[in-house]
Amino acid sequence: MSSYVKELLQRFGDDCGPTDDGIAELPFVRQVLGRKTVRAYTGAMPSDALLELLCAAALSASAKSDFQQASILRVLDPGKRASIGKLFPAMPWIGAAPVFLAFLGDARRLERIGTLRGKRVANGTLEGFFNATVDAALAMQTFILAAESAGLGCCPISVIRNKVDELAAILGLPDQVFPVAGLCVGYPARAGFVSLRLPRTVTLHHDVYDDGALADAVGDYDRRRDAIHSIPKEQQRFTDEFGVADFYGWSEDKARQAAKPEGAAFPIYLRKHGFTLG
Amino acid sequence: MSSYVKELLQRFGDDCGPTDDGIAELPFVRQVLGRKTVRAYTGAMPSDALLELLCAAALSASAKSDFQQASILRVLDPGKRASIGKLFPAMPWIGAAPVFLAFLGDARRLERIGTLRGKRVANGTLEGFFNATVDAALAMQTFILAAESAGLGCCPISVIRNKVDELAAILGLPDQVFPVAGLCVGYPARAGFVSLRLPRTVTLHHDVYDDGALADAVGDYDRRRDAIHSIPKEQQRFTDEFGVADFYGWSEDKARQAAKPEGAAFPIYLRKHGFTLG
Repeated sequence: MSSYVKELLQRFGDDCGPTDDGIAELPFVRQVLGRKTVRAYTGAMPSDALLELLCAAALSASAKSDFQQASILRVLDPGKRASIGKLFPAMPWIGAAPVFLAFLGDARRLERIGTLRGKRVANGTLEGFFNATVDAALAMQTFILAAESAGLGCCPISVIRNKVDELAAILGLPDQVFPVAGLCVGYPARAGFVSLRLPRTVTLHHDVYDDGALADAVGDYDRRRDAIHSIPKEQQRFTDEFGVADFYGWSEDKARQAAKPEGAAFPIYLRKHGFTLG
Repeated sequence: MSSYVKELLQRFGDDCGPTDDGIAELPFVRQVLGRKTVRAYTGAMPSDALLELLCAAALSASAKSDFQQASILRVLDPGKRASIGKLFPAMPWIGAAPVFLAFLGDARRLERIGTLRGKRVANGTLEGFFNATVDAALAMQTFILAAESAGLGCCPISVIRNKVDELAAILGLPDQVFPVAGLCVGYPARAGFVSLRLPRTVTLHHDVYDDGALADAVGDYDRRRDAIHSIPKEQQRFTDEFGVADFYGWSEDKARQAAKPEGAAFPIYLRKHGFTLG
């Protein structure tokens, strides 16, 4: 039995490890296996010193070719916090969280460095966009895990890209700088729960990609999730179009959500603001 | 003086923290501030049990809308390892590292789940591509930090996207599944060094984006890096075109590198394999 069996069962619904794995105690791995997204916070404000330290940790992540294309923007001004919060009335934690950060893909800096050194750098390509996106994501995940190690809880906010024009105006984002995600941060008000993950038979591959087991794995996963947190009938999505399902599992919920695409504003914004995406 | 002053000086060249910050000891934050990219490994092979546990940790990262669009592929087959290594002769660690993983953006799974549930999901949009990219990046960074907490060292390999057609053939990647990065993993053979980061005056912003200090900050940064690890004359890039610089700092090096764009194959591959990027 894996020495991490409790955490693996809670996260994946199966142990999936060898017996007597002989792995030493790894406190950080145990923390990650049990991590939770946190949307409800106490009134306590993390200190500026702690937040600066966590940002320093975030910027210690690797960056593609050492180009360092991530920026972090902390929104402190109460007026700006309120303006951003008002854009997303369905997610009150965006306005209410003690701390709100934006993790920015920053393809602008490399072009400016080219100009400073008399070189022509065209970084509005898909490559530049992709590299800046990944740098910002690596920094954000490092921030999240560092914050969790300090007893904080976080919630990434990808929905800010759906109102990217409004957000960019509030934060004064220049061309080629774009939000990858926002991040709410604070001390957890409630215990919360560990989000169950898809069976690793479909997310881990060896030598070749193989999702042949998907249909069965998703069926099992739906039933396991439903047994822990079933989605109430009144939370079924788009029942006018799709009806009320007798069994409404994760896959039915995600298929309905994905059938109504979001994010239309983002590529339009990018192409207006310095990206060819070619 | 910040209680993390040694790590902050080593990473950023400045303390930048308040005096007496009163932050408790955070072993993980200290680990991250001192982390290093590792390209040279001992011959020791991490156990399968440990690697599976680290993959489980990686898949515990948040995922946009709980769509779970990351996959991890471990390349074990020696023939496939060698074939991938041969694509990148300038980076022998790709073929030689004890462990090689590919972190995949998996926009395919959500479309298949739509089909399984009788819903039409079009996930080849820029939004689908972006979400899958970020999910894979969050998973990779979690793997890296978990691996480092277990004494391993890692090196992300973004260059695999430059040979994406060849790589996809070796790994059997279907449409809408693409590599975000490879990852070399093993026990460090050498102490290595901490990569100095740009001053936070240009990477951290408050309320509005402001890179007005960039020129001065980059100049300072170039000199600080040069004092620690100056780039030897014979490693200056593209001297036929740009000449030999008397002072060749980070910004001159990165401007030259970025002036010769890479990554042309990737957007072509994506558009051939299920992405409109619209």
